[in-house]
Amino acid sequence: MATRWLTDDERVAWVRLAAVVELLPNVLDSQLRRDADLSHFEYFVLAMLSEEPERTLRMTSLASRTSATLPRLSHVVRRLEDRGLVRRFPCPEDGRATNAQLTEAGWQKVRDSAPGHVAHVRSQVIDALDADQVRQLTDITEAILGRIDPDGVVMAPQRNRTATDGDDARHAQRNG
Amino acid sequence: MATRWLTDDERVAWVRLAAVVELLPNVLDSQLRRDADLSHFEYFVLAMLSEEPERTLRMTSLASRTSATLPRLSHVVRRLEDRGLVRRFPCPEDGRATNAQLTEAGWQKVRDSAPGHVAHVRSQVIDALDADQVRQLTDITEAILGRIDPDGVVMAPQRNRTATDGDDARHAQRNG
Repeated sequence: MATRWLTDDERVAWVRLAAVVELLPNVLDSQLRRDADLSHFEYFVLAMLSEEPERTLRMTSLASRTSATLPRLSHVVRRLEDRGLVRRFPCPEDGRATNAQLTEAGWQKVRDSAPGHVAHVRSQVIDALDADQVRQLTDITEAILGRIDPDGVVMAPQRNRTATDGDDARHAQRNG
Repeated sequence: MATRWLTDDERVAWVRLAAVVELLPNVLDSQLRRDADLSHFEYFVLAMLSEEPERTLRMTSLASRTSATLPRLSHVVRRLEDRGLVRRFPCPEDGRATNAQLTEAGWQKVRDSAPGHVAHVRSQVIDALDADQVRQLTDITEAILGRIDPDGVVMAPQRNRTATDGDDARHAQRNG
Protein backbone atom coordinates (compact mmCIF):
# COMPACT_ATOMS: atom_id res chain seq x y z
CA MET A 1 0.00 0.00 0.00
CA ALA A 2 1.34 3.43 -0.93
CA THR A 3 2.52 5.51 2.01
CA ARG A 4 0.42 8.59 2.62
CA TRP A 5 3.21 11.08 3.27
CA LEU A 6 2.40 14.14 5.33
CA THR A 7 1.22 17.22 3.47
CA ASP A 8 3.17 20.43 4.02
CA ASP A 9 0.60 21.70 6.53
CA GLU A 10 0.62 18.43 8.42
CA ARG A 11 4.38 18.27 8.38
CA VAL A 12 4.79 21.70 9.96
CA ALA A 13 2.21 20.95 12.64
CA TRP A 14 3.86 17.63 13.41
CA VAL A 15 7.39 19.00 13.60
CA ARG A 16 6.30 21.73 15.98
CA LEU A 17 4.31 19.38 18.17
CA ALA A 18 7.31 17.05 18.31
CA ALA A 19 9.50 20.00 19.34
CA VAL A 20 7.09 20.93 22.14
CA VAL A 21 7.01 17.32 23.32
CA GLU A 22 10.79 17.29 23.29
CA LEU A 23 11.39 20.60 25.06
CA LEU A 24 8.52 20.98 27.51
CA PRO A 25 9.56 18.31 30.05
CA ASN A 26 12.90 20.07 30.64
CA VAL A 27 11.17 23.42 30.89
CA LEU A 28 8.88 22.07 33.61
CA ASP A 29 11.62 20.13 35.37
CA SER A 30 14.08 22.97 35.56
CA GLN A 31 11.75 25.42 37.33
CA LEU A 32 10.58 22.84 39.85
CA ARG A 33 14.08 21.54 40.52
CA ARG A 34 15.38 25.02 41.08
CA ASP A 35 12.49 26.30 43.20
CA ALA A 36 11.21 23.18 44.93
CA ASP A 37 13.92 20.55 44.50
CA LEU A 38 11.40 18.32 42.73
CA SER A 39 11.18 16.88 39.24
CA HIS A 40 7.92 17.56 37.42
CA PHE A 41 7.01 13.91 37.86
CA GLU A 42 7.65 14.09 41.61
CA TYR A 43 5.53 17.22 41.85
CA PHE A 44 2.81 15.50 39.88
CA VAL A 45 2.80 12.52 42.26
CA LEU A 46 2.51 14.80 45.29
CA ALA A 47 -0.20 16.96 43.66
CA MET A 48 -2.15 13.84 42.79
CA LEU A 49 -2.11 12.57 46.34
CA SER A 50 -2.97 16.02 47.69
CA GLU A 51 -6.49 15.85 46.27
CA GLU A 52 -7.44 12.39 47.45
CA PRO A 53 -9.50 11.66 50.55
CA GLU A 54 -6.99 11.35 53.39
CA ARG A 55 -4.38 12.27 50.75
CA THR A 56 -3.99 8.54 50.15
CA LEU A 57 -4.09 6.37 47.04
CA ARG A 58 -3.18 2.80 46.17
CA MET A 59 0.14 2.56 44.40
CA THR A 60 -1.52 0.85 41.42
CA SER A 61 -4.02 3.71 41.04
CA LEU A 62 -1.29 6.27 41.44
CA ALA A 63 0.65 4.48 38.70
CA SER A 64 -2.19 4.70 36.18
CA ARG A 65 -2.93 8.33 37.04
CA THR A 66 0.66 9.25 36.38
CA SER A 67 0.96 7.00 33.30
CA ALA A 68 3.95 5.41 35.00
CA THR A 69 4.87 1.78 35.29
CA LEU A 70 4.70 0.45 38.84
CA PRO A 71 8.50 -0.04 39.05
CA ARG A 72 9.14 3.53 37.94
CA LEU A 73 6.56 4.89 40.37
CA SER A 74 7.91 2.76 43.23
CA HIS A 75 11.37 4.13 42.62
CA VAL A 76 10.17 7.72 42.76
CA VAL A 77 7.91 7.17 45.77
CA ARG A 78 10.80 5.56 47.64
CA ARG A 79 12.84 8.72 47.12
CA LEU A 80 9.92 10.91 48.23
CA GLU A 81 9.56 8.66 51.27
CA ASP A 82 13.24 9.13 52.12
CA ARG A 83 12.60 12.87 52.09
CA GLY A 84 9.61 12.50 54.41
CA LEU A 85 7.10 13.75 51.85
CA VAL A 86 5.20 10.47 51.39
CA ARG A 87 4.72 7.33 53.45
CA ARG A 88 3.68 3.88 52.34
CA PHE A 89 1.68 1.28 54.27
CA PRO A 90 -0.34 -1.87 53.53
CA CYS A 91 -3.85 -1.16 52.32
CA PRO A 92 -6.29 -1.96 55.19
CA GLU A 93 -8.91 -3.32 52.74
CA ASP A 94 -6.45 -5.48 50.81
CA GLY A 95 -3.31 -6.65 52.55
CA ARG A 96 -1.58 -7.41 49.25
CA ALA A 97 -1.93 -3.80 48.09
CA THR A 98 0.18 -0.86 49.18
CA ASN A 99 -1.09 2.65 49.80
CA ALA A 100 0.86 5.86 49.41
CA GLN A 101 -0.06 8.84 51.59
CA LEU A 102 1.09 12.43 51.53
CA THR A 103 2.68 13.41 54.85
CA GLU A 104 2.15 16.81 56.44
CA ALA A 105 5.53 17.85 55.05
CA GLY A 106 4.47 16.62 51.59
CA TRP A 107 1.27 18.64 51.84
CA GLN A 108 3.27 21.74 52.74
CA LYS A 109 5.56 21.03 49.80
CA VAL A 110 2.62 21.01 47.39
CA ARG A 111 1.19 24.20 48.90
CA ASP A 112 4.52 25.96 48.77
CA SER A 113 5.39 24.80 45.25
CA ALA A 114 2.06 25.29 43.50
CA PRO A 115 2.13 29.09 43.06
CA GLY A 116 5.56 29.10 41.43
CA HIS A 117 4.69 26.13 39.26
CA VAL A 118 1.43 27.58 37.99
CA ALA A 119 3.12 30.93 37.32
CA HIS A 120 5.69 29.05 35.24
CA VAL A 121 3.03 27.11 33.34
CA ARG A 122 1.28 30.43 32.61
CA SER A 123 4.39 32.20 31.41
CA GLN A 124 5.69 29.31 29.31
CA VAL A 125 2.46 27.92 27.85
CA ILE A 126 -0.97 29.26 28.75
CA ASP A 127 -0.35 32.98 28.49
CA ALA A 128 1.07 32.45 25.00
CA LEU A 129 -2.44 31.46 23.87
CA ASP A 130 -5.67 33.41 23.50
CA ALA A 131 -8.99 32.06 24.76
CA ASP A 132 -9.90 30.51 21.40
CA GLN A 133 -6.58 28.74 21.23
CA VAL A 134 -7.02 27.36 24.72
CA ARG A 135 -10.30 25.78 23.62
CA GLN A 136 -8.78 24.57 20.35
CA LEU A 137 -5.90 23.01 22.26
CA THR A 138 -8.37 21.18 24.49
CA ASP A 139 -10.14 19.67 21.47
CA ILE A 140 -6.91 18.84 19.66
CA THR A 141 -5.27 17.15 22.63
CA GLU A 142 -8.49 15.28 23.38
CA ALA A 143 -8.50 13.94 19.82
CA ILE A 144 -4.86 12.88 20.07
CA LEU A 145 -5.38 11.25 23.47
CA GLY A 146 -8.25 9.30 21.93
CA ARG A 147 -5.60 7.63 19.77
CA ILE A 148 -2.59 7.37 22.07
CA ASP A 149 -4.56 6.68 25.26
CA PRO A 150 -7.59 4.78 23.96
CA ASP A 151 -8.40 3.29 27.36
CA GLY A 152 -8.63 6.78 28.78
CA VAL A 153 -6.19 6.13 31.58
CA VAL A 154 -5.04 9.71 31.74
CA MET A 155 -8.34 11.18 30.60
CA ALA A 156 -10.37 9.72 33.45
CA PRO A 157 -12.38 12.50 35.11
CA GLN A 158 -10.49 12.06 38.34
CA ARG A 159 -7.18 12.55 36.59
CA ASN A 160 -8.43 15.70 34.97
CA ARG A 161 -9.50 17.06 38.31
CA THR A 162 -6.39 15.89 40.08
CA ALA A 163 -3.75 17.28 37.81
CA THR A 164 -4.97 20.86 38.08
CA ASP A 165 -2.02 22.54 39.59
CA GLY A 166 -3.82 25.74 40.46
CA ASP A 167 -6.84 23.93 41.73
CA ASP A 168 -4.70 21.87 44.07
CA ALA A 169 -3.36 24.96 45.65
CA ARG A 170 -6.74 26.62 45.85
CA HIS A 171 -7.88 23.56 47.77
CA ALA A 172 -4.76 23.78 49.83
CA GLN A 173 -5.45 27.39 50.62
CA ARG A 174 -9.07 26.79 51.43
CA ASN A 175 -8.27 23.83 53.60
CA GLY A 176 -4.97 24.90 55.02
CA MET B 1 1.69 39.15 44.19
CA ALA B 2 -1.48 37.07 44.03
CA THR B 3 -1.14 33.87 42.04
CA ARG B 4 -3.22 33.83 38.88
CA TRP B 5 -4.54 30.28 39.12
CA LEU B 6 -5.61 28.60 35.91
CA THR B 7 -9.24 29.01 34.87
CA ASP B 8 -11.23 25.82 34.29
CA ASP B 9 -10.74 26.07 30.51
CA GLU B 10 -7.02 26.63 30.88
CA ARG B 11 -6.72 23.84 33.39
CA VAL B 12 -8.32 21.27 31.10
CA ALA B 13 -6.17 22.33 28.15
CA TRP B 14 -3.04 22.20 30.28
CA VAL B 15 -3.77 18.80 31.78
CA ARG B 16 -4.40 17.31 28.36
CA LEU B 17 -1.32 18.85 26.84
CA ALA B 18 0.73 17.53 29.76
CA ALA B 19 -0.74 14.07 29.16
CA VAL B 20 0.19 14.20 25.47
CA VAL B 21 3.71 15.30 26.38
CA GLU B 22 3.93 12.45 28.83
CA LEU B 23 2.56 9.71 26.59
CA LEU B 24 3.66 10.60 23.06
CA PRO B 25 7.39 9.80 23.42
CA ASN B 26 6.61 6.20 24.39
CA VAL B 27 4.11 5.90 21.58
CA LEU B 28 6.75 6.99 19.07
CA ASP B 29 9.51 4.94 20.64
CA SER B 30 7.61 1.70 20.80
CA GLN B 31 6.74 1.59 17.09
CA LEU B 32 10.26 2.45 15.99
CA ARG B 33 11.89 0.05 18.42
CA ARG B 34 9.65 -2.77 17.29
CA ASP B 35 9.86 -2.10 13.55
CA ALA B 36 13.29 -0.53 13.14
CA ASP B 37 15.19 -1.24 16.35
CA LEU B 38 15.61 2.50 16.86
CA SER B 39 14.45 4.94 19.51
CA HIS B 40 12.61 7.98 18.22
CA PHE B 41 15.63 10.09 19.08
CA GLU B 42 17.94 7.77 17.11
CA TYR B 43 15.56 7.89 14.16
CA PHE B 44 15.46 11.66 14.42
CA VAL B 45 19.27 11.89 14.35
CA LEU B 46 19.44 9.69 11.25
CA ALA B 47 16.60 11.56 9.50
CA MET B 48 18.30 14.85 10.24
CA LEU B 49 21.57 13.74 8.68
CA SER B 50 19.75 12.24 5.69
CA GLU B 51 18.75 15.67 4.40
CA GLU B 52 22.10 17.39 4.67
CA PRO B 53 24.54 17.85 1.80
CA GLU B 54 26.75 14.74 1.80
CA ARG B 55 24.52 13.58 4.67
CA THR B 56 26.98 15.21 7.02
CA LEU B 57 26.66 17.69 9.88
CA ARG B 58 28.89 18.98 12.64
CA MET B 59 28.11 17.37 15.95
CA THR B 60 27.43 20.78 17.52
CA SER B 61 24.86 21.61 14.81
CA LEU B 62 23.30 18.18 15.13
CA ALA B 63 23.01 18.76 18.88
CA SER B 64 21.09 22.01 18.50
CA ARG B 65 18.83 20.57 15.82
CA THR B 66 17.89 17.71 18.08
CA SER B 67 17.66 19.92 21.21
CA ALA B 68 20.13 17.53 22.81
CA THR B 69 23.16 18.30 24.92
CA LEU B 70 26.42 17.38 23.26
CA PRO B 71 27.16 14.59 25.78
CA ARG B 72 23.74 13.03 25.20
CA LEU B 73 24.11 13.27 21.45
CA SER B 74 27.66 11.86 21.56
CA HIS B 75 26.41 8.88 23.50
CA VAL B 76 23.67 8.15 20.98
CA VAL B 77 25.90 8.73 17.96
CA ARG B 78 28.50 6.36 19.42
CA ARG B 79 25.85 3.64 19.56
CA LEU B 80 24.73 4.39 16.00
CA GLU B 81 28.38 4.25 14.95
CA ASP B 82 28.78 0.83 16.58
CA ARG B 83 25.87 -0.32 14.44
CA GLY B 84 27.46 1.05 11.29
CA LEU B 85 24.71 3.62 10.67
CA VAL B 86 26.82 6.73 11.25
CA ARG B 87 30.53 7.55 11.13
CA ARG B 88 32.41 10.42 12.76
CA PHE B 89 35.51 12.19 11.50
CA PRO B 90 37.34 15.47 12.10
CA CYS B 91 35.82 18.41 10.26
CA PRO B 92 38.14 19.28 7.31
CA GLU B 93 37.46 23.02 7.78
CA ASP B 94 38.01 23.02 11.53
CA GLY B 95 40.18 20.32 13.01
CA ARG B 96 38.78 20.86 16.51
CA ALA B 97 35.25 20.07 15.31
CA THR B 98 33.80 16.63 14.64
CA ASN B 99 31.43 15.76 11.81
CA ALA B 100 28.83 13.03 11.80
CA GLN B 101 27.92 11.40 8.52
CA LEU B 102 25.18 8.96 7.63
CA THR B 103 26.64 5.77 6.16
CA GLU B 104 25.04 3.91 3.26
CA ALA B 105 23.54 1.50 5.80
CA GLY B 106 22.20 4.45 7.79
CA TRP B 107 20.64 5.89 4.66
CA GLN B 108 18.96 2.58 3.94
CA LYS B 109 17.75 2.49 7.52
CA VAL B 110 16.03 5.87 7.15
CA ARG B 111 14.49 4.85 3.84
CA ASP B 112 13.24 1.56 5.22
CA SER B 113 11.91 3.04 8.45
CA ALA B 114 10.23 6.19 7.17
CA PRO B 115 7.04 4.66 5.71
CA GLY B 116 6.19 2.78 8.90
CA HIS B 117 7.02 5.76 11.04
CA VAL B 118 4.91 8.20 9.06
CA ALA B 119 2.00 5.75 9.00
CA HIS B 120 2.26 5.57 12.79
CA VAL B 121 2.39 9.37 13.16
CA ARG B 122 -0.71 9.56 10.94
CA SER B 123 -2.68 6.97 12.84
CA GLN B 124 -1.74 8.24 16.30
CA VAL B 125 -1.78 11.99 15.77
CA ILE B 126 -2.42 13.61 12.42
CA ASP B 127 -5.40 11.60 11.23
CA ALA B 128 -7.15 12.38 14.53
CA LEU B 129 -7.32 16.02 13.43
CA ASP B 130 -9.24 17.80 10.68
CA ALA B 131 -7.57 20.36 8.40
CA ASP B 132 -8.60 23.31 10.61
CA GLN B 133 -7.16 21.64 13.67
CA VAL B 134 -3.89 20.96 11.88
CA ARG B 135 -3.57 24.69 11.19
CA GLN B 136 -4.64 25.58 14.72
CA LEU B 137 -2.07 23.17 16.12
CA THR B 138 0.62 24.85 14.02
CA ASP B 139 -0.25 28.27 15.44
CA ILE B 140 -0.59 27.00 19.00
CA THR B 141 2.71 25.12 19.02
CA GLU B 142 4.43 28.07 17.36
CA ALA B 143 3.17 30.34 20.16
CA ILE B 144 4.35 27.89 22.83
CA LEU B 145 7.75 27.43 21.17
CA GLY B 146 8.09 31.23 21.18
CA ARG B 147 8.13 30.91 24.96
CA ILE B 148 9.99 27.67 25.61
CA ASP B 149 12.44 28.02 22.71
CA PRO B 150 12.89 31.80 22.46
CA ASP B 151 16.16 31.49 20.55
CA GLY B 152 14.39 29.46 17.91
CA VAL B 153 16.81 26.57 18.07
CA VAL B 154 14.26 23.97 17.07
CA MET B 155 12.18 26.37 14.97
CA ALA B 156 14.97 27.23 12.60
CA PRO B 157 13.77 26.76 9.02
CA GLN B 158 16.30 24.02 8.45
CA ARG B 159 15.03 22.08 11.40
CA ASN B 160 11.48 22.38 10.18
CA ARG B 161 12.48 21.04 6.82
CA THR B 162 14.67 18.35 8.20
CA ALA B 163 12.32 16.72 10.62
CA THR B 164 9.70 15.95 8.00
CA ASP B 165 9.56 12.23 8.20
CA GLY B 166 7.63 11.75 5.01
CA ASP B 167 9.61 14.30 3.16
CA ASP B 168 12.83 12.51 4.03
CA ALA B 169 11.57 9.38 2.47
CA ARG B 170 10.19 11.15 -0.55
CA HIS B 171 13.67 12.50 -1.06
CA ALA B 172 14.99 9.04 -0.49
CA GLN B 173 12.65 7.64 -3.10
CA ARG B 174 13.40 10.34 -5.59
CA ASN B 175 17.10 9.99 -5.11
CA GLY B 176 17.30 6.29 -4.42
